[in-house]
Amino acid sequence: MAFDGIETPFGSTDRIVGGAASYISLASSLLHEHVNLVAVVGEDFPQDFVDTLRHRGVNTQGLQVKQGEKSFYWKGRYHLDMNTRDTLATELNVLGSFDPVLPENYRNSRYIMLGNLSPKVQSTVIERLDQKPELVVMDTMNFWMESAMDDLRHTLTLTDVLTINDEEARQLSGEYSLVKAAKIIRNMGPRILVIKKGEHGALLFHGDDIFFCPALPLEEVFDPTGAGDTFAGGFIGYIARHGKTDFDTMRKAIVHGSALASFCVEKFGPERLLEINEQDLADRVGRFEQLSRF
Amino acid sequence: MAFDGIETPFGSTDRIVGGAASYISLASSLLHEHVNLVAVVGEDFPQDFVDTLRHRGVNTQGLQVKQGEKSFYWKGRYHLDMNTRDTLATELNVLGSFDPVLPENYRNSRYIMLGNLSPKVQSTVIERLDQKPELVVMDTMNFWMESAMDDLRHTLTLTDVLTINDEEARQLSGEYSLVKAAKIIRNMGPRILVIKKGEHGALLFHGDDIFFCPALPLEEVFDPTGAGDTFAGGFIGYIARHGKTDFDTMRKAIVHGSALASFCVEKFGPERLLEINEQDLADRVGRFEQLSRF
Repeated sequence: MAFDGIETPFGSTDRIVGGAASYISLASSLLHEHVNLVAVVGEDFPQDFVDTLRHRGVNTQGLQVKQGEKSFYWKGRYHLDMNTRDTLATELNVLGSFDPVLPENYRNSRYIMLGNLSPKVQSTVIERLDQKPELVVMDTMNFWMESAMDDLRHTLTLTDVLTINDEEARQLSGEYSLVKAAKIIRNMGPRILVIKKGEHGALLFHGDDIFFCPALPLEEVFDPTGAGDTFAGGFIGYIARHGKTDFDTMRKAIVHGSALASFCVEKFGPERLLEINEQDLADRVGRFEQLSRF
Repeated sequence: MAFDGIETPFGSTDRIVGGAASYISLASSLLHEHVNLVAVVGEDFPQDFVDTLRHRGVNTQGLQVKQGEKSFYWKGRYHLDMNTRDTLATELNVLGSFDPVLPENYRNSRYIMLGNLSPKVQSTVIERLDQKPELVVMDTMNFWMESAMDDLRHTLTLTDVLTINDEEARQLSGEYSLVKAAKIIRNMGPRILVIKKGEHGALLFHGDDIFFCPALPLEEVFDPTGAGDTFAGGFIGYIARHGKTDFDTMRKAIVHGSALASFCVEKFGPERLLEINEQDLADRVGRFEQLSRF
């Protein structure tokens, strides 16, 4: 959980609430009643937002608030195509020494979503569980491939599903073709792979099956920050709600994640996610069905 | 109809048969019995290929063979992503003075596919018909936006469906968002718009409806030359076969076009299209269904 400063062609904002855990828990709380949050913030983080999560049923016992310290801060600027961005500032702050704490009532969690963070922290979360979960989903990014590849390789072996974007899939595998890249990555640990392509949709590789989910064509992508995390939150939330990991459940989970992401990009930060309810989500899933049916 | 020289990361070839009309008529002849070809070649063009088209039921009475002249020639090099290419050579030859001839038995054609060519030649074909067709589909490219925009504007007003790629839609409309671009372009004439996104699929804007068709994830895109024309040929062929232009027919037409394009890219030039039959096409359409069903 963090603060973000965001510049887009449509406007700019600074120090708004962000971070993978914020988006993942907001998104998954629309789909599942029991969301257990593990994160760290500084004393500057707004209690209001934590209260909002609690009101939505998110268990925040695993949230550490470090007195005398500051929350992680990221500032970036998006280009017109909204698929590329420049990082203008990164302040690690509390994330520099994050040692994740899992309260006792978290340790039998069956569905784990590891937001994008140091692969060492991600594997520590898995190791602190009391029993092997049904499904571990992991998000990562190119930064960790460049700075912590050994840790990343280890965490991948503990993972059932990896979600990364197309460029990262190419980087991780060394293959341009996403079909070839998927084969290589699935030999590194995760038996299931989700490749996020932003405005170009998402691909699910599951067993011998492939599912493609389009992105909703939008008049305007206002701010893509958090869209990937929101997607992941919707994905794990749907799976946890239904308690199944078969291909059919997973492709519906992908659609729910994509639908939530399509809301996320409509306003700055997590603002839009705070406005929508289950019916809005169901309606949007219906639009995905109309979009891809033939 | 033309000769192409093609360099890809996988190999290179020179002076193989290509050109929009070759791909369009090959693709549409798999779906419809009465394909009338209008094109021009020089005396260097292989009669073998013309015979092949005839054996597939393509009427070649509208093909002009210019004695003492040479066929159009294009040479290009693809980059690793296969979505971008550099033109290495263009020799207009017979295309420089192309005056399309429509034999009398062509002039009541109901479904017209105008391959990518000078918009002046495209509109001449429409003007030489005896009656207004059911549907005029037009392909174009950025080159004509830069060199013949007035002619292009006129031809657009004669057109029901425009097929262009995403970059060209942005250039033609001046809008980055494809949803906004579609609105502007549909005010220029075509009531229906197909935006081709190569490996990222295709979008159909029809009335108030949008349909998205993914591209099939392939291990290898060997040579993308002609994929857009093949798509267009499959699209018009499916529509002509069913004699309908409603949304449901058009989205199935898009899938058939995409399926044919997915074959086209598997080998150099039109080679793969010459190998497949109706059953292969039906099987591949089935793979698109599996890919997008949820």
